[in-house]
Amino acid sequence: MTALTREDVTGMILSAKRQAGLTWEGIAETVGMSPVWTHSAAMGMNAMPEEKARAMTEVLGLPQEAALILQESPTKIWEQAVPTDPCIYRLYEIVGVYGPTIKALIHEKFGDGIMSAIDFDMSVTRVENPKGDRVKIEMSGKYLAYNAW
Amino acid sequence: MTALTREDVTGMILSAKRQAGLTWEGIAETVGMSPVWTHSAAMGMNAMPEEKARAMTEVLGLPQEAALILQESPTKIWEQAVPTDPCIYRLYEIVGVYGPTIKALIHEKFGDGIMSAIDFDMSVTRVENPKGDRVKIEMSGKYLAYNAW
Amino acid sequence: MTALTREDVTGMILSAKRQAGLTWEGIAETVGMSPVWTHSAAMGMNAMPEEKARAMTEVLGLPQEAALILQESPTKIWEQAVPTDPCIYRLYEIVGVYGPTIKALIHEKFGDGIMSAIDFDMSVTRVENPKGDRVKIEMSGKYLAYNAW
Amino acid sequence: MTALTREDVTGMILSAKRQAGLTWEGIAETVGMSPVWTHSAAMGMNAMPEEKARAMTEVLGLPQEAALILQESPTKIWEQAVPTDPCIYRLYEIVGVYGPTIKALIHEKFGDGIMSAIDFDMSVTRVENPKGDRVKIEMSGKYLAYNAW
Amino acid sequence: MTALTREDVTGMILSAKRQAGLTWEGIAETVGMSPVWTHSAAMGMNAMPEEKARAMTEVLGLPQEAALILQESPTKIWEQAVPTDPCIYRLYEIVGVYGPTIKALIHEKFGDGIMSAIDFDMSVTRVENPKGDRVKIEMSGKYLAYNAW
Amino acid sequence: MTALTREDVTGMILSAKRQAGLTWEGIAETVGMSPVWTHSAAMGMNAMPEEKARAMTEVLGLPQEAALILQESPTKIWEQAVPTDPCIYRLYEIVGVYGPTIKALIHEKFGDGIMSAIDFDMSVTRVENPKGDRVKIEMSGKYLAYNAW
Amino acid sequence: MTALTREDVTGMILSAKRQAGLTWEGIAETVGMSPVWTHSAAMGMNAMPEEKARAMTEVLGLPQEAALILQESPTKIWEQAVPTDPCIYRLYEIVGVYGPTIKALIHEKFGDGIMSAIDFDMSVTRVENPKGDRVKIEMSGKYLAYNAW
Amino acid sequence: MTALTREDVTGMILSAKRQAGLTWEGIAETVGMSPVWTHSAAMGMNAMPEEKARAMTEVLGLPQEAALILQESPTKIWEQAVPTDPCIYRLYEIVGVYGPTIKALIHEKFGDGIMSAIDFDMSVTRVENPKGDRVKIEMSGKYLAYNAW
Amino acid sequence: MTALTREDVTGMILSAKRQAGLTWEGIAETVGMSPVWTHSAAMGMNAMPEEKARAMTEVLGLPQEAALILQESPTKIWEQAVPTDPCIYRLYEIVGVYGPTIKALIHEKFGDGIMSAIDFDMSVTRVENPKGDRVKIEMSGKYLAYNAW
Amino acid sequence: MTALTREDVTGMILSAKRQAGLTWEGIAETVGMSPVWTHSAAMGMNAMPEEKARAMTEVLGLPQEAALILQESPTKIWEQAVPTDPCIYRLYEIVGVYGPTIKALIHEKFGDGIMSAIDFDMSVTRVENPKGDRVKIEMSGKYLAYNAW
Repeated sequence: MTALTREDVTGMILSAKRQAGLTWEGIAETVGMSPVWTHSAAMGMNAMPEEKARAMTEVLGLPQEAALILQESPTKIWEQAVPTDPCIYRLYEIVGVYGPTIKALIHEKFGDGIMSAIDFDMSVTRVENPKGDRVKIEMSGKYLAYNAW
Repeated sequence: MTALTREDVTGMILSAKRQAGLTWEGIAETVGMSPVWTHSAAMGMNAMPEEKARAMTEVLGLPQEAALILQESPTKIWEQAVPTDPCIYRLYEIVGVYGPTIKALIHEKFGDGIMSAIDFDMSVTRVENPKGDRVKIEMSGKYLAYNAW
Repeated sequence: MTALTREDVTGMILSAKRQAGLTWEGIAETVGMSPVWTHSAAMGMNAMPEEKARAMTEVLGLPQEAALILQESPTKIWEQAVPTDPCIYRLYEIVGVYGPTIKALIHEKFGDGIMSAIDFDMSVTRVENPKGDRVKIEMSGKYLAYNAW
Repeated sequence: MTALTREDVTGMILSAKRQAGLTWEGIAETVGMSPVWTHSAAMGMNAMPEEKARAMTEVLGLPQEAALILQESPTKIWEQAVPTDPCIYRLYEIVGVYGPTIKALIHEKFGDGIMSAIDFDMSVTRVENPKGDRVKIEMSGKYLAYNAW
Repeated sequence: MTALTREDVTGMILSAKRQAGLTWEGIAETVGMSPVWTHSAAMGMNAMPEEKARAMTEVLGLPQEAALILQESPTKIWEQAVPTDPCIYRLYEIVGVYGPTIKALIHEKFGDGIMSAIDFDMSVTRVENPKGDRVKIEMSGKYLAYNAW
Repeated sequence: MTALTREDVTGMILSAKRQAGLTWEGIAETVGMSPVWTHSAAMGMNAMPEEKARAMTEVLGLPQEAALILQESPTKIWEQAVPTDPCIYRLYEIVGVYGPTIKALIHEKFGDGIMSAIDFDMSVTRVENPKGDRVKIEMSGKYLAYNAW
Repeated sequence: MTALTREDVTGMILSAKRQAGLTWEGIAETVGMSPVWTHSAAMGMNAMPEEKARAMTEVLGLPQEAALILQESPTKIWEQAVPTDPCIYRLYEIVGVYGPTIKALIHEKFGDGIMSAIDFDMSVTRVENPKGDRVKIEMSGKYLAYNAW
Repeated sequence: MTALTREDVTGMILSAKRQAGLTWEGIAETVGMSPVWTHSAAMGMNAMPEEKARAMTEVLGLPQEAALILQESPTKIWEQAVPTDPCIYRLYEIVGVYGPTIKALIHEKFGDGIMSAIDFDMSVTRVENPKGDRVKIEMSGKYLAYNAW
Repeated sequence: MTALTREDVTGMILSAKRQAGLTWEGIAETVGMSPVWTHSAAMGMNAMPEEKARAMTEVLGLPQEAALILQESPTKIWEQAVPTDPCIYRLYEIVGVYGPTIKALIHEKFGDGIMSAIDFDMSVTRVENPKGDRVKIEMSGKYLAYNAW
Repeated sequence: MTALTREDVTGMILSAKRQAGLTWEGIAETVGMSPVWTHSAAMGMNAMPEEKARAMTEVLGLPQEAALILQESPTKIWEQAVPTDPCIYRLYEIVGVYGPTIKALIHEKFGDGIMSAIDFDMSVTRVENPKGDRVKIEMSGKYLAYNAW
């Protein structure tokens, strides 16, 4: 008998979600985490605490072994090369790890289309925090729907 | 006599800024635009309207030809390869075009360091807008300062 | 039981089309869309509205699950790297997404051969439109048939 | 004394055009050719017949040697890799050779922006021609202007 | 039941040829075409007219579906990248499409070895032709046999 | 004083040829070698025997040092990657070393255009030779002239 | 019956370890080697002496053939390209061979997170040794835990 | 007058060090920092606090502008590509940023040679620390001197 | 029934050799060829004469079809890219074709380790030979054994 | 005044050697080292002991600073990528570092041509040595002269 792989678990989650007619927002609410983090953990880009992994597998009817695999630290691999500069690498890490999540949530919230980077604006601000100040980046782009003809 | 290139203009801006002890926030206020857009236009990643180009060259003491070049539509080239999927390409376009801007503003606002993508969270929301709804992405990461020893 | 993938659906469409002796023009007419869009959606490069997906699966005798998959927003991946400049990226997006479609329609309309880029001309024009003016690009190249000897 | 290179001639054309306040449409009319072909020949992507090369250098006040170089068959090199399939290679040849031309004409006709490939449609048709039938490709995409903030 | 692919047909041809002890020259004679074209079509690098595809499948005892696939226009893909210049691309297209054919015919005609490009000469000539003059390229290289020790 | 490089010599040859209105066929006849070999040696892709190097520099009025450099064994570098298989590598070596030569001779003999690889045929034959049999490859492709519009 | 491969053995080790609830430190103690070397040998990046291979397979309940394979000299392949300089290549060899080992031990000792290269210091010292002096490199980086939200 | 670049400053440091017969250990002692950090900052891979930058430029006799540039946050670029996984990326960041430093210090401490990765061992340990526990990595490799013959 | 591939034959040879406890030197002696050539032919990097192929398959107990495949001219493919210069390409061809053979023989003759390129020397000499003089290259490097700790 | 670089020194050596009509064998004899090592050190691929560096600069009439640079440990960079496996990497290190040396010595000893890897043989043997046994690799390939026509 062969062991489950992380790819198997991802496939099971996608298939169970489609058959049950669930949304990422709904699953996230059940698990008690944000939709962004929940989707990325389901895609194998983040490790889940034990309690969250159990909630995820219960709501989707997955086997127990899946909950174990969802708790392991994944090796995060994505297609695009990343730059060497440590400050800019983090930006590419973010779009590499969370890019498919942003795409999935745009399709869930808007339909078949994209966020424009032409009709677009962005800000970078410093937010004070007793545990260490934080960088806040806010982006806003117009949703554009694909044309069918 | 050889004509000015866009690289020349970028170099002139960086040199004049250093000598005058200006900040990107200060230049942006003078020009009347946001710091993010102002820095990216100064780096040759956005075209400036005529009035803004003139304000920029005046505050930094650049020649008139520089204002003309700042108004031309640049060919936007950066080092990292971009993925093919149109929805995900926009995310790479954003970090390709604005990555050096985010880096410059972090250094200006915090010092020599980076935004963490480990102590990090993000949200994706839909914002209603009469001209077409917009995708809003908010990121927050802890600032981490480089160690010297 | 394993779920259908988009690759499975594309394979089913090609196989059913070959066995039924259909053409892309014919399928497009049945579906009520253009041949270019119909072929690209069949290849997994565009998402189909529900009604169109059902028409496609009915005319080709595919299972119900195929109609669900044809409605999902695909991740558009093709072999060739794309340039960074946003204006020129769109041209590569077009030949990346629709290149196999153009090739299939040339073979369907002309036979085994190519469109020449040597005996070739092109124009770019501005077309007024109340919803926003449009760029129109027209290309014309001589058909050249492969030699067999 | 060093000989002129093709890059020198391209630089001279761009500089003279900027100083004289000319447009590609205007230069093309003077030369008696289309704007697309005229721009691509000026960029070193097509060879000019003797008469056209002379008209181009006269209107822009370039030296005689420039007219000789404009008549030579260029080695056409561009940044993006091209695919191997001969039918699809031609599409990449077209966007490689004429991509900067399309970009320049969009900026000249519309301003700082792009042609959308999302709000977009395309057709492929066969045009009868006594010298050999031709493939006609027509594309239409909405113009989108860059946002400044 | 899964449909035959082109790779399956190529494998069937190679296997049937080995078992029947046939040569490419012999198969070509039966099909009534040249050995170069016959081998390249068998390898999936050229489409066969219906009659030729039937002759090929008959002499090798292949199923009917194979004859249909041999008539389809292949997407020609090979490992090596190709240059952008249209004139030089054709030379790489030739060695990409016909390279394995030249290798197979050298082994069939000479044995285990190569054509030297050191003890080598070549000519390029213009051949008049009422349908359009032709470029003729002739190469001659010494055969070198591999050493075994 | 800096020494001449091979690139300098190639530039000198091209410049002197243009100014003197010479052709590669004419230079080859003077040197007493074939046009293909003469062009490739002038481009730095083959070493010239002493007598030939002197004839070349005399007819073009180049300095003595150029004749010395033309006799040195060049390191042959070209842009395209080459495959590993020794038999197929030789074909890529030929188009890498002689590709620019074939292009130059097509332009000299026909004008601004290419050799078609679509309206094309090829043969591979064994030629007996007392010093070792030779592989003969003959290619024939229709000349196609670029369109200007 | 197909023979075991090294990948099979690696998979068996990971699966048996997960089911038995073992740690790398525990396995290393049983085998009598260091955790770093033990993990890398288990991953197929080092060959094991016969006695160690037997201890490893016994503690995990693997078949005898696995012990034979663990003794063979592996071909060490990893994803990242390595630089040519011999002195710097060794550093990349170390992170290529032992990178996954360091990652696994960080997760085992700390949890889901990373070693910072920002809050980081390092020293290089010479250590005398009668068999030949040694280079000692010491690195220290703060552990950072992933955020979940 | 053109402004100094960071590359200029690096070149000045190397040249002044060679002429003054200084060592990295000696410079580091003067600056009051470790040799590893001092060399990496001199190579443009770390930003220096103002006081350290002044000490560095004084001991080497560099112009004042150099001290300003040494204080700027560098964009850290090196030749080798880096992997995507955040935990393993840090290891490549370390050898990318500090690789040339380790090489320089090995040559300074030992002579012309390398650290072996064959006669080599390594450990990974957890070090408690009130500001957050730290990962400690220790490597030891035999020094091997190049042979000259 | 699917035909044997060359990869199958290589796998069979390795498996049979392991089970029979044979060495490459022993197999080579049986076949009557050198260990280097024998290993490279077994790996599919050289074609075997009929008699040698039969001896190989007999000593290892392989099926008859394997002997046929061992006689075919292989397409030699290896991972590393090769340079274009014909003289230097041959050196890369040698390490590409025979690199795994040298590695296997070092492990067979010495154990788990490498040949040093630091404690290393080499000579190049001309050897007279009536069939054409030969280049002789001799390399000598110290064997270094891997450390286990 | 700008400092000499290693590239400058290599260029000076090549130029002085050409003008003085020296050979690598002759220079090596003067320096008292082997031709292989002498050429590689002159090309910047090995560091010279002080005495050898002085002998080299004296025989060629180079400035004193050149002798200092010849003693520094070079960063060895060459064009071709290298494989990861440590045992096979050494073989690529050898052809990367000494490839241009082998080429130069073949041209010096034989003329314009190459060493064949087709008419070729090789052996790998173990040589006992009290300081540690050594791997000996011997290669022999027929010299092939380029054809000129």
